[in-house]
Amino acid sequence: MNAQEKLKNKLDKGLHICVGLDTDKNKIPNHLSSDKHGVLEFNKAIIEETNEFSAAYKINFAFYEESGAEGMEMLTKTLEYIPDDILVIGDAKRGDIGNTSKMYAKSLFDHFNLDASTLSPYMGEDSLKPFLDYSDKLHFILALTSNPGSHDFEKLEITSGKKLYQEVIQKVNEWNTFKNCGIVFGATNLDELIANIDEFGDLFVLLPGVGAQGGDLEGIVKTFKQNSNNNYIVNVSRVLLYADDSENYAEKSKQVLLDYNRIIQDAQ
Amino acid sequence: MNAQEKLKNKLDKGLHICVGLDTDKNKIPNHLSSDKHGVLEFNKAIIEETNEFSAAYKINFAFYEESGAEGMEMLTKTLEYIPDDILVIGDAKRGDIGNTSKMYAKSLFDHFNLDASTLSPYMGEDSLKPFLDYSDKLHFILALTSNPGSHDFEKLEITSGKKLYQEVIQKVNEWNTFKNCGIVFGATNLDELIANIDEFGDLFVLLPGVGAQGGDLEGIVKTFKQNSNNNYIVNVSRVLLYADDSENYAEKSKQVLLDYNRIIQDAQ
Repeated sequence: MNAQEKLKNKLDKGLHICVGLDTDKNKIPNHLSSDKHGVLEFNKAIIEETNEFSAAYKINFAFYEESGAEGMEMLTKTLEYIPDDILVIGDAKRGDIGNTSKMYAKSLFDHFNLDASTLSPYMGEDSLKPFLDYSDKLHFILALTSNPGSHDFEKLEITSGKKLYQEVIQKVNEWNTFKNCGIVFGATNLDELIANIDEFGDLFVLLPGVGAQGGDLEGIVKTFKQNSNNNYIVNVSRVLLYADDSENYAEKSKQVLLDYNRIIQDAQ
Repeated sequence: MNAQEKLKNKLDKGLHICVGLDTDKNKIPNHLSSDKHGVLEFNKAIIEETNEFSAAYKINFAFYEESGAEGMEMLTKTLEYIPDDILVIGDAKRGDIGNTSKMYAKSLFDHFNLDASTLSPYMGEDSLKPFLDYSDKLHFILALTSNPGSHDFEKLEITSGKKLYQEVIQKVNEWNTFKNCGIVFGATNLDELIANIDEFGDLFVLLPGVGAQGGDLEGIVKTFKQNSNNNYIVNVSRVLLYADDSENYAEKSKQVLLDYNRIIQDAQ
């Protein structure tokens, strides 16, 4: 099953939440944080409790790379816990000159066997192509992000009258030869979502920013519904992962996920 | 010695070449490529032969991450071969929401103990600040890159009349509170270098694109000289690393470096 099929299957079932495994060893429950393998045990339990009810997982490389080689091993082992029919996004916001991007793509798809990438568009087409050439994988390219800094460059107006992020969306549509492209569109930008959703075309949309960053899930779901667009996933990390500090943390995380799923269902 | 001092010491000696350790196990000499530790032996020999004559080293994360945990160990061991008085740049073009950038910064500076980062500006100030807060490290932010894709977004004109990369340079100057900021400016853009060097102010400049990408080293050196700006390093990777396939490869790499140093000296 390729990446597109994996995701489509879940979306068809009404599942839209992507669980972000940004696992911080300083934030997991106390009884685990002192254990060398605590992060792994934590990820395993979270995945066991949530995999039936989530659309995808997102592995944030930062939280593993921070422990160097040991972290990369944790990342590899974490991936083994995820059922094969669920999309796993390698979130590292890559983008470099061609021969370097090729190596990063080999890392994500050949070494770690991930299903999808997140990419930064700043360096343009040839910095993304080595990823996009993996036609059976999905690639989410940063368009408009959820953070305050999106005002610095992403929202700058260019002389065509468009904003920079709108130009990125147009280019990504042009580069979508293999129908394997997506965009990252921050959930904190509901007005911009409403104003731009017509331009998304076939692109898959990854929306971070619900939960700790305050994005409006209900508004997002309604907007996609009104536009008969079902190709979106909403990432939730901290508010789900660290919902509880007790031994029942994973059960509590599952409840948070089910609550989000209910909001999505009710808003449809 | 902090990162700024390390680099200044080398620049004062007229050293401007940064050796890029983009070590590809498929490109190193045959007698090493079959050996599990071939990459390490290669890096060690290259560093031993070049460290006296180079201004800095640049570690390209892609070429190590591609081998997962094992690659991260190679990266760590490679760093041990580099003398402590030489700036080492961790090249991974980071930039993410605040709490993730904080983790990447911890990875680069606390775990790997690198001296400098390369960063992607797309997501704006708060995505870079966790790096810039490491005041005794250096941070090279992508402005205008050396690849063809620089036309897609970096060279777009914004409504202020500036190009996007010029807006980035202006912002980086504003964010340079700790005098620890730099920019990446592709060596293939000599006309743009001449046109923009006045705006660089105190910023350190990392210029990739000489060698395999065809940048004009002599033109670059003359431009900096004419503007009494000595704060630049020029990265060279492939053309130096893979200069020779014999057992004397490291000696040949040193010759390539010395040839570049001579071009720099002659152009001054």
